[in-house]
Amino acid sequence: MHYSSKLIERAVEEIAKLPGIGKKSALRIVLHLLKQDPKQSHQLAEALIQLRDNIQYCRECHNIADEALCYFCKDTRRRRDIICVVEHFKDIAAIERTGHYHGLYHVLGGLISPIDGVGPQDIHIESLLQRVRQGEVTEVILALSSTMEGDTTAFYLTKRLKEQQVKVTALARGVPIGSELEFTDELTLTRSLLGRTEF
Amino acid sequence: MHYSSKLIERAVEEIAKLPGIGKKSALRIVLHLLKQDPKQSHQLAEALIQLRDNIQYCRECHNIADEALCYFCKDTRRRRDIICVVEHFKDIAAIERTGHYHGLYHVLGGLISPIDGVGPQDIHIESLLQRVRQGEVTEVILALSSTMEGDTTAFYLTKRLKEQQVKVTALARGVPIGSELEFTDELTLTRSLLGRTEF
Repeated sequence: MHYSSKLIERAVEEIAKLPGIGKKSALRIVLHLLKQDPKQSHQLAEALIQLRDNIQYCRECHNIADEALCYFCKDTRRRRDIICVVEHFKDIAAIERTGHYHGLYHVLGGLISPIDGVGPQDIHIESLLQRVRQGEVTEVILALSSTMEGDTTAFYLTKRLKEQQVKVTALARGVPIGSELEFTDELTLTRSLLGRTEF
Repeated sequence: MHYSSKLIERAVEEIAKLPGIGKKSALRIVLHLLKQDPKQSHQLAEALIQLRDNIQYCRECHNIADEALCYFCKDTRRRRDIICVVEHFKDIAAIERTGHYHGLYHVLGGLISPIDGVGPQDIHIESLLQRVRQGEVTEVILALSSTMEGDTTAFYLTKRLKEQQVKVTALARGVPIGSELEFTDELTLTRSLLGRTEF
């Protein structure tokens, strides 16, 4: 397409590199920005630069952080005797939305996957063991995906954590709230049967 | 939603102000940028700032321009005796895609619309008459939308331009290529009948 302006062309090209945005949407965004106060484009540009230049990983839990310690590790009101282990920092947002967890986190940054050549040394397991070794932690909750890789990682972590006499728990597996039994798959149903709880 | 990072929160907020992008897509874009080379975020930010700070309107035809004159007015290979009048600079892209026009343009920046309080003095009509008055132009093509406002504007322009003995033409109205007669609306069919061409 011919934009008859190098400025527009360049902006469209850069915006179209973003996921889920094609050249047509990019042009729409450009025309929108041209109609708005220049301040908006400047604020957007500034936010992107600040984000990319200043984001870091928490030195304690590897969560994304604005400073050396992340939002949770910095928060003195959170329980420091319990650590919830997740694969990705996006998972933290999901757990926070429940409003039922008030401990710390640990972001592995991946899952053990022999098929992809990812071993225990490739993800943040040593630093988790290190945190537990300091003695303050009494429980580690494994909040990993219910996949082969998630289970492999949970299995390995349980083995390593048990050496340190810490309580290891995992998210309950079962029939999701609101779903009908008729349409629940056999594996989930099996897990929910085996893990049935007393009424 | 809780992002546990002010940097992410601010970037998401700014991105979500863009048309067609909600908070979820904005977060996806932010996470994407964090995975990419920092250079990409910087180039995007730079393109936005350059766009907003340096774009201007062509002093001849009011098209969007990187300099005082736009891409077309600057191009010495284009015919200078013919001007195609459009409402918006986006219309230029549509005409350029045909590859069958090699003259200059004039962007009105709107259409006469008494209902919305837009009169002839509110759009770039005087500067068009001025360009024609200079004598080089022999034909003015009205490439306006086939709406009430488009027709009103075309009527007014024709009246004013005729005073200067310049040839005024308009885009042909008729049955679109590829469409079936059965499904063509009566107004279009009436226009195509009245404007029938010899075979």
